[in-house]
Amino acid sequence: MSRVVRLAVIPGDGIGPEVIAEAVKVLDAASGAEGVVFDKTVFSLGAARYLETGDILTDEDLAAIRGHDAILLGAVGGVPGDPRLSDVSIERELLLQLRFDLDQYVNLRPARIYPGVPGPLADAGDVDFVVVREGTEGAYSGSGGSLRTGTAHEIATEVSVNTAFGVERVVRYAFALAAKRRKRLTWVGKTNVIVFAGALWQRVVGDVAKEYPDVVVDYLHVDAATIHLVADPARFDVIVTDNLFGDILTDLAGAITGGIGLAASGNIHPDGAFPSMFEPVHGSAPDIAGRRLADPTAAILSVALLLQHLGLDDEASRVARAVEADIASRGGLPARTTSEIGDSIVAALGR
Amino acid sequence: MSRVVRLAVIPGDGIGPEVIAEAVKVLDAASGAEGVVFDKTVFSLGAARYLETGDILTDEDLAAIRGHDAILLGAVGGVPGDPRLSDVSIERELLLQLRFDLDQYVNLRPARIYPGVPGPLADAGDVDFVVVREGTEGAYSGSGGSLRTGTAHEIATEVSVNTAFGVERVVRYAFALAAKRRKRLTWVGKTNVIVFAGALWQRVVGDVAKEYPDVVVDYLHVDAATIHLVADPARFDVIVTDNLFGDILTDLAGAITGGIGLAASGNIHPDGAFPSMFEPVHGSAPDIAGRRLADPTAAILSVALLLQHLGLDDEASRVARAVEADIASRGGLPARTTSEIGDSIVAALGR
Ligand SMILES: CC(C)[C@H](C(=O)O)[C@@H](O)C(=O)O
Ligand SMILES: CC(C)[C@H](C(=O)O)[C@@H](O)C(=O)O
Repeated sequence: MSRVVRLAVIPGDGIGPEVIAEAVKVLDAASGAEGVVFDKTVFSLGAARYLETGDILTDEDLAAIRGHDAILLGAVGGVPGDPRLSDVSIERELLLQLRFDLDQYVNLRPARIYPGVPGPLADAGDVDFVVVREGTEGAYSGSGGSLRTGTAHEIATEVSVNTAFGVERVVRYAFALAAKRRKRLTWVGKTNVIVFAGALWQRVVGDVAKEYPDVVVDYLHVDAATIHLVADPARFDVIVTDNLFGDILTDLAGAITGGIGLAASGNIHPDGAFPSMFEPVHGSAPDIAGRRLADPTAAILSVALLLQHLGLDDEASRVARAVEADIASRGGLPARTTSEIGDSIVAALGR
Repeated sequence: MSRVVRLAVIPGDGIGPEVIAEAVKVLDAASGAEGVVFDKTVFSLGAARYLETGDILTDEDLAAIRGHDAILLGAVGGVPGDPRLSDVSIERELLLQLRFDLDQYVNLRPARIYPGVPGPLADAGDVDFVVVREGTEGAYSGSGGSLRTGTAHEIATEVSVNTAFGVERVVRYAFALAAKRRKRLTWVGKTNVIVFAGALWQRVVGDVAKEYPDVVVDYLHVDAATIHLVADPARFDVIVTDNLFGDILTDLAGAITGGIGLAASGNIHPDGAFPSMFEPVHGSAPDIAGRRLADPTAAILSVALLLQHLGLDDEASRVARAVEADIASRGGLPARTTSEIGDSIVAALGR
């Protein structure tokens, strides 16, 4: 008897469809033999669809997506500076909207330096950490506004909203994860400046820490965290932080661990009431779209996170190991096309 | 006839006094021969003073400091976790208070990779850029609060305040600086999420750009900016951004350009109505205080910025060149003490 997983696939814009094609290839290869069937519905959402129809994410889109077990997303966003997009933000109205509407409060972003990947910190030791970024509040709440807009007296405010409810659930997730890993949790804030949110996070981290006496907790200001990420990334195991700092630190983490072409992510609603969404951290990169240059590895590693989320741990490990094998074989080889990388990973799955 | 400059010196806490001793030594050596006399008043402010007297920055302190032409500051802040400091933030109530009260709206932070300095990006090419960080508004405004504080229903807000007045003056400063340098300005924001502030910055940058047709302007989201800082820092000339993003990006810039031990800064009120303040970017580092381990170079380079601000361009260049000579001579040598580095830079001044 086979298990059917209803998967919403949102290829998106730019290189999104290119990397998703490879990710789906790997997903099917990894799961087919194990009696799991992914029943896929493709949703054509993104800048291209908006330009065609004027719609970004309708109630019908959202309802249809909600009817799935999980979501695989490529990347969304048009060409920067496109005047037809100047009044909208596809990223905000589509990607952030999905994260918020589907209450995906854990934005999970692993970072590893794979043996064989060149990079500024290739010999930084054993770098393998996970950033748990809060996904549904903070500076991303969209609260704020402007007065005397467009004049010399304009004032624009942005409100970061932080709740005990929202902070506690993501902090709990991070502690549970740290307890299963190397038992080290670093929380990142800016308590000397961002004082109200800082005090809330500090209290919650302190409270939850009592339930995890064997997890070692430390704190870093976000500015200092960037220094440690560059100077000594091997010190990190699990990092937990808010939506904005998490956004910044995970791009930096990607940059120091072999490039954003390897950075995968999950937008997770842990209890399953909403579908979780898996996507590479990179954007739609319209400048390289259509040239077969995009590295599908981040999308493929996102498939590994998806499999893990579905409880398909063996399949997830197989994909992760196949990616590792592919990366290890890259050294000195000429650059490959998007599909050559996908094929190589599929081939490694069989081994 | 000699020119007298009234200088307020705030050595501060931890390694602050140690690096300031060297910075003052260099300042005197660089300026004495040229007929400029620095008339110094030392202000004992910081965590140590607070623990002794309960005062952080009194009205009298502020009035006395305002009577000076410029300020040289070491670093302030006590030992992290000191329970006697748990209810105060020395950094906020002293350092930020000075920046705000003295309207130091340009936080100027140069970043250079010096030949001979080891670091992750030692061969990134010619890296020499300046971050112009807004210093008096944004997420640093201290606006916000919390409701149902300390309960499971707490909500904490933080308000980033951005004004056309505040953004325009710092953006103008950045354009003028870029026009004198390599004519390339990058402004950094997060316009796809932080939309109200983003729109204000975008409009102001666009407007001022019209007055500088020969300055090439580009934009980066803050997350992408971290990637470019790691992957290709040589692309930057002048970066302009808000208070919070500037805080984060300048620590990162320090980390990739030879370490925070070389990162200098100026908190500048350009028209001279208030004294400007010069300080290393690093903190008080209580863990290494008193062990003669602190590198005074960032404080000494801050002296170079101070001299430049006072119009003493020749003296400023002499200090900068002496630092360069000292750094070039470091390769392979055993580590030196704080005062050995200061002495070596003083010696290089004479050459
Ligand atoms: C596209 C953008 C809204 C998004 C974010 O800021 O979260 C992206 O940078 C990311 O990290 O997934
Ligand atoms: C100490 C702290 C308040 C300060 C800041 O955030 O501005 C520091 O990090 C800096 O960059 O000068």
